[in-house]
Amino acid sequence: MRPPHFHPIRKKIRNPLRIAQVAPLYESVPPKLYGGTERVVAYLTEELVRRGHEVTLFASADSTAKSKIQSTCPAALREAGLAHLGASLQLAALSEVFDRSDRFDIIHSHIDYWSFPFGRLVETPTVTTLHGRLDIEELFGIYRYYSDASVVSISDAQRAPLPELNWVDTVYHGLPKEQLRFNPGPGKYLAFLGRIAPEKRPDLAIEIARRAGIPLKIAAKVDVVDRDYFESEIRPRIDSRNVEFIGEIGEHEKSEFLGDALALLFPIDWPEPFGLVMSEALACGTPVIARPCGSVPEILDHGVTGFVASSLDDLVHAVHNVSSIARRTCREVFETRFTAGAMAANYERIYYQLISADRVRPWRSDPEPLRTLAEAALVQDGAQPQDRLLAQPGLTSVRP
Amino acid sequence: MRPPHFHPIRKKIRNPLRIAQVAPLYESVPPKLYGGTERVVAYLTEELVRRGHEVTLFASADSTAKSKIQSTCPAALREAGLAHLGASLQLAALSEVFDRSDRFDIIHSHIDYWSFPFGRLVETPTVTTLHGRLDIEELFGIYRYYSDASVVSISDAQRAPLPELNWVDTVYHGLPKEQLRFNPGPGKYLAFLGRIAPEKRPDLAIEIARRAGIPLKIAAKVDVVDRDYFESEIRPRIDSRNVEFIGEIGEHEKSEFLGDALALLFPIDWPEPFGLVMSEALACGTPVIARPCGSVPEILDHGVTGFVASSLDDLVHAVHNVSSIARRTCREVFETRFTAGAMAANYERIYYQLISADRVRPWRSDPEPLRTLAEAALVQDGAQPQDRLLAQPGLTSVRP
Repeated sequence: MRPPHFHPIRKKIRNPLRIAQVAPLYESVPPKLYGGTERVVAYLTEELVRRGHEVTLFASADSTAKSKIQSTCPAALREAGLAHLGASLQLAALSEVFDRSDRFDIIHSHIDYWSFPFGRLVETPTVTTLHGRLDIEELFGIYRYYSDASVVSISDAQRAPLPELNWVDTVYHGLPKEQLRFNPGPGKYLAFLGRIAPEKRPDLAIEIARRAGIPLKIAAKVDVVDRDYFESEIRPRIDSRNVEFIGEIGEHEKSEFLGDALALLFPIDWPEPFGLVMSEALACGTPVIARPCGSVPEILDHGVTGFVASSLDDLVHAVHNVSSIARRTCREVFETRFTAGAMAANYERIYYQLISADRVRPWRSDPEPLRTLAEAALVQDGAQPQDRLLAQPGLTSVRP
Repeated sequence: MRPPHFHPIRKKIRNPLRIAQVAPLYESVPPKLYGGTERVVAYLTEELVRRGHEVTLFASADSTAKSKIQSTCPAALREAGLAHLGASLQLAALSEVFDRSDRFDIIHSHIDYWSFPFGRLVETPTVTTLHGRLDIEELFGIYRYYSDASVVSISDAQRAPLPELNWVDTVYHGLPKEQLRFNPGPGKYLAFLGRIAPEKRPDLAIEIARRAGIPLKIAAKVDVVDRDYFESEIRPRIDSRNVEFIGEIGEHEKSEFLGDALALLFPIDWPEPFGLVMSEALACGTPVIARPCGSVPEILDHGVTGFVASSLDDLVHAVHNVSSIARRTCREVFETRFTAGAMAANYERIYYQLISADRVRPWRSDPEPLRTLAEAALVQDGAQPQDRLLAQPGLTSVRP
């Protein structure tokens, strides 16, 4: 067991809270097109404002979320062709936040590990939501090195590669309640929505639809890296009658695209950390048929909001049974678990919890040589430091 | 005039000093082969130890400098193929330093702008030596944003693109006094030492030697990016009698290579921030013939330690006159200005100056909105923020 870094004490807490939200700089908040993290940060920020908090959103200057915005670079980096300056711009953005940390009650970061070193140096508590997949071994070192940092997962499944981090809670992403329209259905086609990429298995979606004898509509963007995959594996299987490809769609088109569908097919083959599209489908009352990877078994209630199945046969069988799912129930589950309001309430609770706790800073009180924290991280799963040193970039040793 | 960030007050100063030296992680300290910054950090560290200070060198674990070494990654990144993890490893390295900042009297960083945001958040004064060229417009934003950070230039000329930074002083690089052997000469050939690259003008060195009728020896490495240039422009002009190419040489071969030369040719065509090879030649008693770019007019005394000239004719003329330079004087100038001892004494003085000063932190006491510091940086040369915003990534604006 790791020692807890927080223990509750009585403390006077301001209400409303002064909250800093720290967004990535690669897309605007919300993003003009694709950009899951920036979209969720926008929803959370606006909901916290609605709840009366003083929120300062640190984001690119072209952000349009309805809150006070402190822009830390003039334009979203991807569109402006400035992505190669990400490191230097991110540092300046972090200075904007942490130089004035005493103006905030809580700092909530959404930029991976970048806030960790800064959070250690100021009094204001910092919490980071990890938005990406965590099974990238090269980065284990940096996450373990900062295993004192308070982190929030977007599904329990996301934590699997790094269970030893200081996980505060899981908070599911939420959408504004009225953003997508409930459709009583029953729907006429199967839908595939998102990115064309091998791990999203659009090929399997096509095969499921073909065997079930129901038309499939694919609304998806094709990134440059996936162009070859699209041309060789997907395009040859598109025909206007049974498998229709309609390209990328905007937020305002989703109600119709998802609401008119019999079911959303989500036959993924990777550890999806959350999967916003599943909650979008439920918001429209549309059941989801998905493979049990990553967050899927947490998001879906098998037999209630859709079906979770692995094999092609079982997935086809699920399509045949989809009329047994009550679309009204899908919408109700969305309203209970996956709205921006539910998300903001969860984060609010976490903010109060962290503010009321006193932080222990082991590296400050530690009288030992500097290596202590780093080697503690190294040996925590029983391996000897020297065995794992080369597998653990970012971790340290001392020699005289 | 910018307001001074430091003003002297009386304060009790420890002696010896507890000094943190923060090296780049890309090469070991000292580097196994090429790596100017890491080599200078090694010389400085060892000289400060010799002077009795408690130095902790933060560097890759394969570093061998004779001091206490706090390794922040298991191996030099370039050799280990880990350069793509530079950002995350650098952050962990900076935490190693700044989490325990109160164990040091001064933190001396050699990793460009990376220490700037951390230096603001701790009490211990931080100073950064800028080792690279500063005429990269894309990075002006980040340097100006941190124009409160104490920085040291390695030549006055290096400052030209960013005179508005908080320059504390210029400190020339130094070599251990006995590392290279004085040779009374007079020398038999012209020498070219360093990298084969267009801006180093090896082609011009060949032309100077050909016209002067004196053989040229080229000891240089060829980076992958310069392979084409070498094959097309340089290799065709190599012949074993008049222009000899001997490849990359090690530290222990420099005394002989430079000491046996009549003069070092340094006909560069770029803003060289320092040019270690010039001081290496002087250490051997070998005069330098150079073009007046970057640091050259500061390092060389025209007519005393060599000649500074622009045109081919004047450079050839300088070769004919080189016997008028006293080799003993070259060595004396080296011993006075370019030893590791001289460098360490200069840095020691800067450390005491920064430790005895009280820092003013404008962004802390500032009651205005967060934009103040950033916009101050933007408008300091008279331009309106909006005119320059897109030219100034990393700088900020506020909107309600």
